[in-house]
Amino acid sequence: MTEHVLRPIGHVESALKDQAAAPRQPDEGAPDAWLVLDDQYLPALDGLTPGSDALLLTWLDRADRDTLAVHPRGDSTRPLTGVFATRSPDRPNPIGLHTIHILSAAGPRIHVRNLEALDGTPILDIKPILTRDR
Amino acid sequence: MTEHVLRPIGHVESALKDQAAAPRQPDEGAPDAWLVLDDQYLPALDGLTPGSDALLLTWLDRADRDTLAVHPRGDSTRPLTGVFATRSPDRPNPIGLHTIHILSAAGPRIHVRNLEALDGTPILDIKPILTRDR
Repeated sequence: MTEHVLRPIGHVESALKDQAAAPRQPDEGAPDAWLVLDDQYLPALDGLTPGSDALLLTWLDRADRDTLAVHPRGDSTRPLTGVFATRSPDRPNPIGLHTIHILSAAGPRIHVRNLEALDGTPILDIKPILTRDR
Repeated sequence: MTEHVLRPIGHVESALKDQAAAPRQPDEGAPDAWLVLDDQYLPALDGLTPGSDALLLTWLDRADRDTLAVHPRGDSTRPLTGVFATRSPDRPNPIGLHTIHILSAAGPRIHVRNLEALDGTPILDIKPILTRDR
């Protein structure tokens, strides 16, 4: 199949430096963080509002892309499950999907609440919140 | 910045052949469709259940990646808005995010309800439904 090349639009700036210490989910102690976008994408940010929620897509660059099945949450007592039925970062295309709350946005730096992505994680996209109707 | 290469895991099989005729959202007349995965990813599907919902990530390969602002829904009476505040397919990394309902799954072919993706669209990932808590 054809391969497609991603162009990261920026990166995450966070106190989370280490995968072993990272929370698995944002409600498990993830810190506030900054999204640092490349200046060329400033026009694409127009319309993002402090106080609102959005979806953030990242590239989990430390993931193992050859993993096809995992024990959910690393718990070996749980049966092996296909990665497409789990939120394991290890998967063929390790795209991270995060709900963010925008605290402030000044130029290319966006301050967000409770992000479980590691420092330096490439940012791919920001989208409005997904609902059943849109 | 470093570039990262996607490896499509399969493609969409749909009666929707033409972008101009495609609905913008799944509740605007999108047909049922098939997700056709490469055989090598069969182990990663283990755990997907007919009757359940999931998230589908696609690569919108007909999108314009240089577009940074659009009139939402192509309506020129609406103000130009940064693509990160819209669901425009035209954006730097045109990753499509779709909520799917799995009608049936037999081997590498997954039948889904109401998918607004065009025939041939590369599939990147399938994930459990995103909720605020996970």
